[in-house]
Amino acid sequence: VSSTLGANSYGKSGIRLFHVARDGDRHEVADLTVAVALEGDFETAHTVGDNAGILATDTMKNTVYAMARTHGVGEPEEFGLLLARHFLGAVAHVSRVRISIQQHVWERMSVGGHEHTHSFRKAGEEKRLAFVTATRASETVEAGVEDLVVLKTTGSAFTGYIRDPFTTLPETTDRIMATAIRAVWTLSRSDADHGSVFAAARTALLDVFADHPSESVQHTLYAMGDEVLNRCPDVTEVRFSLPNKHHLLANLAPFGLDNPNVVFVPTTEPYGLIEATVRRAE
Amino acid sequence: VSSTLGANSYGKSGIRLFHVARDGDRHEVADLTVAVALEGDFETAHTVGDNAGILATDTMKNTVYAMARTHGVGEPEEFGLLLARHFLGAVAHVSRVRISIQQHVWERMSVGGHEHTHSFRKAGEEKRLAFVTATRASETVEAGVEDLVVLKTTGSAFTGYIRDPFTTLPETTDRIMATAIRAVWTLSRSDADHGSVFAAARTALLDVFADHPSESVQHTLYAMGDEVLNRCPDVTEVRFSLPNKHHLLANLAPFGLDNPNVVFVPTTEPYGLIEATVRRAE
Amino acid sequence: VSSTLGANSYGKSGIRLFHVARDGDRHEVADLTVAVALEGDFETAHTVGDNAGILATDTMKNTVYAMARTHGVGEPEEFGLLLARHFLGAVAHVSRVRISIQQHVWERMSVGGHEHTHSFRKAGEEKRLAFVTATRASETVEAGVEDLVVLKTTGSAFTGYIRDPFTTLPETTDRIMATAIRAVWTLSRSDADHGSVFAAARTALLDVFADHPSESVQHTLYAMGDEVLNRCPDVTEVRFSLPNKHHLLANLAPFGLDNPNVVFVPTTEPYGLIEATVRRAE
Amino acid sequence: VSSTLGANSYGKSGIRLFHVARDGDRHEVADLTVAVALEGDFETAHTVGDNAGILATDTMKNTVYAMARTHGVGEPEEFGLLLARHFLGAVAHVSRVRISIQQHVWERMSVGGHEHTHSFRKAGEEKRLAFVTATRASETVEAGVEDLVVLKTTGSAFTGYIRDPFTTLPETTDRIMATAIRAVWTLSRSDADHGSVFAAARTALLDVFADHPSESVQHTLYAMGDEVLNRCPDVTEVRFSLPNKHHLLANLAPFGLDNPNVVFVPTTEPYGLIEATVRRAE
Repeated sequence: VSSTLGANSYGKSGIRLFHVARDGDRHEVADLTVAVALEGDFETAHTVGDNAGILATDTMKNTVYAMARTHGVGEPEEFGLLLARHFLGAVAHVSRVRISIQQHVWERMSVGGHEHTHSFRKAGEEKRLAFVTATRASETVEAGVEDLVVLKTTGSAFTGYIRDPFTTLPETTDRIMATAIRAVWTLSRSDADHGSVFAAARTALLDVFADHPSESVQHTLYAMGDEVLNRCPDVTEVRFSLPNKHHLLANLAPFGLDNPNVVFVPTTEPYGLIEATVRRAE
Repeated sequence: VSSTLGANSYGKSGIRLFHVARDGDRHEVADLTVAVALEGDFETAHTVGDNAGILATDTMKNTVYAMARTHGVGEPEEFGLLLARHFLGAVAHVSRVRISIQQHVWERMSVGGHEHTHSFRKAGEEKRLAFVTATRASETVEAGVEDLVVLKTTGSAFTGYIRDPFTTLPETTDRIMATAIRAVWTLSRSDADHGSVFAAARTALLDVFADHPSESVQHTLYAMGDEVLNRCPDVTEVRFSLPNKHHLLANLAPFGLDNPNVVFVPTTEPYGLIEATVRRAE
Repeated sequence: VSSTLGANSYGKSGIRLFHVARDGDRHEVADLTVAVALEGDFETAHTVGDNAGILATDTMKNTVYAMARTHGVGEPEEFGLLLARHFLGAVAHVSRVRISIQQHVWERMSVGGHEHTHSFRKAGEEKRLAFVTATRASETVEAGVEDLVVLKTTGSAFTGYIRDPFTTLPETTDRIMATAIRAVWTLSRSDADHGSVFAAARTALLDVFADHPSESVQHTLYAMGDEVLNRCPDVTEVRFSLPNKHHLLANLAPFGLDNPNVVFVPTTEPYGLIEATVRRAE
Repeated sequence: VSSTLGANSYGKSGIRLFHVARDGDRHEVADLTVAVALEGDFETAHTVGDNAGILATDTMKNTVYAMARTHGVGEPEEFGLLLARHFLGAVAHVSRVRISIQQHVWERMSVGGHEHTHSFRKAGEEKRLAFVTATRASETVEAGVEDLVVLKTTGSAFTGYIRDPFTTLPETTDRIMATAIRAVWTLSRSDADHGSVFAAARTALLDVFADHPSESVQHTLYAMGDEVLNRCPDVTEVRFSLPNKHHLLANLAPFGLDNPNVVFVPTTEPYGLIEATVRRAE
């Protein structure tokens, strides 16, 4: 056959970058995993193996390190914009650049009650996210968080759902709810105060998770999205992916014991998966 | 604010199912991880916590096991269709069902030169994939493979690419090429002979990977897609995601040693990532 | 042949237990992964398939949940002792019980500046460890920490090592040092104040890591062990396993850029691995 | 305090090595992860930060690559011996060297019914293992396999075990048995025909797993060890670590369905863990 090339992109993923900024003795660190992807006219590379228009992915990696040295890292959204603009400028036949950044979080240590100048502890699996998509006509910035694992031991119910022939789940007005929040929000402008927006949105997620009387994961999801939009005027929508990390009540009846929400069995498979977008109303 | 609910879905992921079929003493096994996702009118579940229209994800899990008992598993595409049709029938306000299946591959053992009736060895991380998306008006079946890890020690070059100020990669006419193939193809009809199509498509991928004189991952990708379309009339397009699993030539010059493609350093980060769709020409 | 059964044990691993304790509205959580292993006279189970002396591993799992309900969890060292004593009592021909506990760490959330009564955030991959080994004659308690990932951006050197024909590493008086601390200490008595010992030992590790002027990972290891022994009279020795999580200085010279410890490449493979025991001097 | 340094070692882990050997057009590949650990007089490195006696772990890595170029890889046991002898020779105050090798398995592809000269497919997570421990007086070679995942759908029972107040598991005369075999055997001499021993031992494990009528994992373990010793005169003992990868019978009774060993739920947590050594009788 003679086939047609459809949508395509290529780039470098998993570029690990650790940047140290110094303000006198006080060091600030940024630990990123960066991915670069280019779209454009790369048809002959595919169809006849002509690499004349290909920027090597090794070059993309080098560029990330050089840019970090030249310009610093700052907020990941800003570093993403810097990179996206560079690659649009570097290769004329690139039509779209996508930069994806995960920022790994380190907490400054305290020693003897004082913040340490240069020692840090890794603060879990939570990642701050930044995505920049740029064409020659527009720039879109998204930001977010993933693997933000949270749990509440009460204040969560699940009742009133459909009972069909395959339904065995008992209703409950009091259960553990746990999830690993992945939330990505779209910004209305690329020059927002990204550090402040991120902090406000993340706090909104946590505040609502903790305090909202939940009837389901969907119910909590919507309330979190609504509050992010409420607190962050520069955010236009929030997309969520929330696994329901089930904690099953252990059945202790065979041993003559009750279990008033004391002993649970955390499970990893299977898991509920709730995904939705919450948008600012027109 | 008063926010709007956008696109949303929910369901159960990570449903682990192991099915044994018996033909006399000879046992056949199917080892699946199934995900169910429903779309439809679930707005009040999100906005006011009303679960009256919610089929519990625990019920979805139960249904998968019951369906496997009642109907068997067969080809994963067919089991996916069975499940999709069930859930459309079970909940009137569901508009779209997505079933995603990973089939884990077991190889029958041979003992003393004879195929064993009931003992199996896990054949790696490769997974057969099946995706069914069904609405009340249409059914789409996709199939594929992922984590099919392949490597060739010669027959791969990378030359003639852009040299910009950040390019340091030397050109090579002979390198190791390795990838973990993820390929998903779309079928033109849901009643194809799914077992045969899968086998033919997978063989096409492997044959081309092995024999195609490669100028780049893109070049190999296109050739693989073209050959799948060539051999499989029921396939309309193939989508690839191919990480370039770099094997770097070890620099032995400091020790007075040459290295004519003998000693390599496999690396995991960073990695090239090449993604494209190859479609049947009109 | 007629073979001999050597050292053997069996048990249940990966027992996931989540326990909620309530003090009025304020909830405390304990999230454990427990392993139980029994040694004793289990020879005929192996040699002739006689299970008459086997306590099923499923029963061990049930017992962990029942004990958690009956006695609570408390400090993991104490829960381990409780379990070990139970299994010694339950099966007469068991000679040794080993209980291994990983405690996953959750941090209480703060909302609006106040500690929340029942909402928690997972605080990373760090695990508190407790190991109890009990025979009918003795009990040994060990405690520790693993996956405590720390990094310092200065205050670490590596110079003066052997230069042989295969040495290419440049000396440095200022590098990043990063590791995932695994430290397990032995207690001189099983009735120590386990919560206090754990807190003091963990703080000693962090304080020394941060402030000690390091000539190597070995140098830091010894200083950390020495300080744990200094601060914790109930500890007799500390065993360390410290991967050297290398952060390589990016080579920016090809781009005409210097790199005065600003841009680093974190790597995962290969890694140095430094292991040693530090003991209280006689 | 003034602490004492106890047992200690250091080295490089996770050294990834891919070696290509050529016999005309036909290529052979070896894909190894190597770890080097040295013991000896390294006290002052720990206590006062004196690195004069330290061979950098980076140098160990370089040495592995240089040795692979100079001598080839061959059987991993032999490559381990080569490395161990080198490091004993290179550093006078090293008293013991431990080399640990995982060999990742690649299968040669067949294209059009013929073995391909240079294309390979990764054959799963199974690893061949080789461990060499060498002092100035002795050499010990161990070999083995790990992550060899096997499953049988019948021919496995579990009955007659202790029933105590926490026992709920029903007895079964027919269940799925699945495990990931980790078996490490000790060789009586370092110059055995390592390729043949490995092949014979691995086949013995698989043959017995498949055909042995099993009363428990312990029962199968012993039979496998006995057969390895039977077929391999150069092996003196076999150490096993066998997780019981439980496949639970799905409870379909709530849906009015029976389940005569047809539908199972594979689980990962918790898991039984059976460990034992089987030795050649005197």
